[in-house]
Amino acid sequence: MSEAGFQASGVVTLLTDFGLKDPYVGVMKGVMLSSAPKLELIDLTHGVPPQEVAVGAWHIQQSWARFPAGTVHVVVIDPGVGSERRILLAEQAGHLFLAPDNGVLDPTLTADAMVRVLDAERFALPGASRTFHGRDVFSPAAAALAAGLSPAEAGEETSDWVRLKLPSPELSEDGTIRAGVLYADNFGNLVTTVGAELLGRGLSWSVEVGGETMPLVGTYAEVGEGELLALVGSGGTVEISLRDGDAAAHLGVEAGGAVLLRPGT
Amino acid sequence: MSEAGFQASGVVTLLTDFGLKDPYVGVMKGVMLSSAPKLELIDLTHGVPPQEVAVGAWHIQQSWARFPAGTVHVVVIDPGVGSERRILLAEQAGHLFLAPDNGVLDPTLTADAMVRVLDAERFALPGASRTFHGRDVFSPAAAALAAGLSPAEAGEETSDWVRLKLPSPELSEDGTIRAGVLYADNFGNLVTTVGAELLGRGLSWSVEVGGETMPLVGTYAEVGEGELLALVGSGGTVEISLRDGDAAAHLGVEAGGAVLLRPGT
Amino acid sequence: MSEAGFQASGVVTLLTDFGLKDPYVGVMKGVMLSSAPKLELIDLTHGVPPQEVAVGAWHIQQSWARFPAGTVHVVVIDPGVGSERRILLAEQAGHLFLAPDNGVLDPTLTADAMVRVLDAERFALPGASRTFHGRDVFSPAAAALAAGLSPAEAGEETSDWVRLKLPSPELSEDGTIRAGVLYADNFGNLVTTVGAELLGRGLSWSVEVGGETMPLVGTYAEVGEGELLALVGSGGTVEISLRDGDAAAHLGVEAGGAVLLRPGT
Repeated sequence: MSEAGFQASGVVTLLTDFGLKDPYVGVMKGVMLSSAPKLELIDLTHGVPPQEVAVGAWHIQQSWARFPAGTVHVVVIDPGVGSERRILLAEQAGHLFLAPDNGVLDPTLTADAMVRVLDAERFALPGASRTFHGRDVFSPAAAALAAGLSPAEAGEETSDWVRLKLPSPELSEDGTIRAGVLYADNFGNLVTTVGAELLGRGLSWSVEVGGETMPLVGTYAEVGEGELLALVGSGGTVEISLRDGDAAAHLGVEAGGAVLLRPGT
Repeated sequence: MSEAGFQASGVVTLLTDFGLKDPYVGVMKGVMLSSAPKLELIDLTHGVPPQEVAVGAWHIQQSWARFPAGTVHVVVIDPGVGSERRILLAEQAGHLFLAPDNGVLDPTLTADAMVRVLDAERFALPGASRTFHGRDVFSPAAAALAAGLSPAEAGEETSDWVRLKLPSPELSEDGTIRAGVLYADNFGNLVTTVGAELLGRGLSWSVEVGGETMPLVGTYAEVGEGELLALVGSGGTVEISLRDGDAAAHLGVEAGGAVLLRPGT
Repeated sequence: MSEAGFQASGVVTLLTDFGLKDPYVGVMKGVMLSSAPKLELIDLTHGVPPQEVAVGAWHIQQSWARFPAGTVHVVVIDPGVGSERRILLAEQAGHLFLAPDNGVLDPTLTADAMVRVLDAERFALPGASRTFHGRDVFSPAAAALAAGLSPAEAGEETSDWVRLKLPSPELSEDGTIRAGVLYADNFGNLVTTVGAELLGRGLSWSVEVGGETMPLVGTYAEVGEGELLALVGSGGTVEISLRDGDAAAHLGVEAGGAVLLRPGT
């Protein structure tokens, strides 16, 4: 639990469910540049389905460590905006995180995290709205922190925040693993939370989803074009794919769909 | 009417109806960086529905002042590209604006604006197309201005530009307000042009849209999950929302739909 | 065939089929900034339809020269990721290109290009995945090159890469030209590969597509609102458009659709 690690680099990432159809994200950047002109602003994604806290939680957990130390990660999936929900400011491994206290940050945090409650009033723009804290609170706070404000000056420490358990695989005595689809990505890959460590080494698995059975393979090229497969994806968990196609559309399966893995077959 | 205010900061915003499926926006940035390598290029949004000048006009009016003085705002919603339509270069409160003279900029401009007709020929790239002035005229002009060219050197002053009246609310003698939906945002919020100043203070209102009636509240949390509400949104005007849902889809209402506000109920 | 031309400017463009729904693109930028903090990262587009190598090939061919010399262009449309396919590093006219060796880069390359096979193992991140080389190989390589690594140190020269022939127009003896639709853009414009040079000067043409006939004109304003037209688009090839509308939706034509041009009528 040390803050020695955070030295602002000026990089800010943005992860929201705002989409790109409206100027919401652009305006957040305007607010940040208005107080800290030299920031490097990176869109992680704004394609989280509206108010899907679990998907946002997965994305930030998977992504943050790919950025350099000194990055401020701003996560605004915030169905409770305007209510009494708090805003968390967490520090971990030289990175900072700003997010509503609704669980979206919880899976990312390790035992080493220093978590604070942001002093939101201090940062809120004059005339702040009750519906767009991304612009009116998160952006000015992120800009100040990315420009060098010490996290210790931005809020009081807490150990009490909203926990979020991502859907976790169930292991049966016969060795099968039951899991759920967390979301379908742009390619129609069905992403699960079944980590590679559950699969052992050298074991073969068959995977059932949407009434079809497919092998667990190492890479797309191991099956023919148009065939279904499962593999450990780039996030380190099992994904269901259709070679050169869209597995989600082909199977008619989406977030929440059941996945069964059977060993040794 | 003074130009003393504009000192280029190197920030350029882009607002278009180009979408992000094609490289049109990327290529505009390439053209700008080719002549001014140090620009900070910010996408306001490229999700304006094709050729919807009124939506673009609303977005730039709502957004520009969130950026630092010295910003050049490039607005390319341009159904008349290739015709004789002019390009406006406006200066206001230390910001510059480039936009086709089709009304898209008009609601943004105040009495203090200094408006010029861009000397488009001066900036046009060799072999400029007749269909993509975003790349061939707006981008080189924006880069030059963002790099410090004086607006006074870029065109002749005018007081004659295309006006655009955004749909405005009608007030009845009995106190009701009739308005229209300007557009639905990414969350399915139905945005109107009914400004908070029309609602008075402390008065209660009921709102009718799509055959349903809902209260005007202060924030989403004041109604139950899945319930309809109206509130003053982050742009300062009345929006219709569905808590934790998509009001546009739920109501089957889109741009142009009628909204009725009744006071005191 | 000289490398004297490449002097890294720090600009990197990204062209993928990853879409913007997921954090894939954001994470690539994180990896790049982790080793080269001062890069200027520009999205060319991420809207190439999944695995549509020909569309990606067209976009990079049309776009690269709009960027300043010293740019590194990263093209990841990569259905063969995880297989034995190689990664090309090409240098041309002071620009660098990184792309899988699947033809996506071929139409861009001229006789002056110096093409190398990237030493992928040298750049691969520890624990590199077999499904996301955009993050694990392309990004670290691009960052190193954009930060000044000599291309000569990054791979061995080759003259043997996968060729790709974009669909080319067929000219008949009677002067007609038969071509195909390469893709429909965000506006519903149907883009072909029929270059302006095939049309001669001063000749009039009629164009047939989807059972309708329309004139070849110089700009949208030459036909009435809601009318079909063909013109030489901003990429220098014939496009089919609907004035103030969406030609693709109107005609029910998409990629692969037939286009016939008749002279003198």
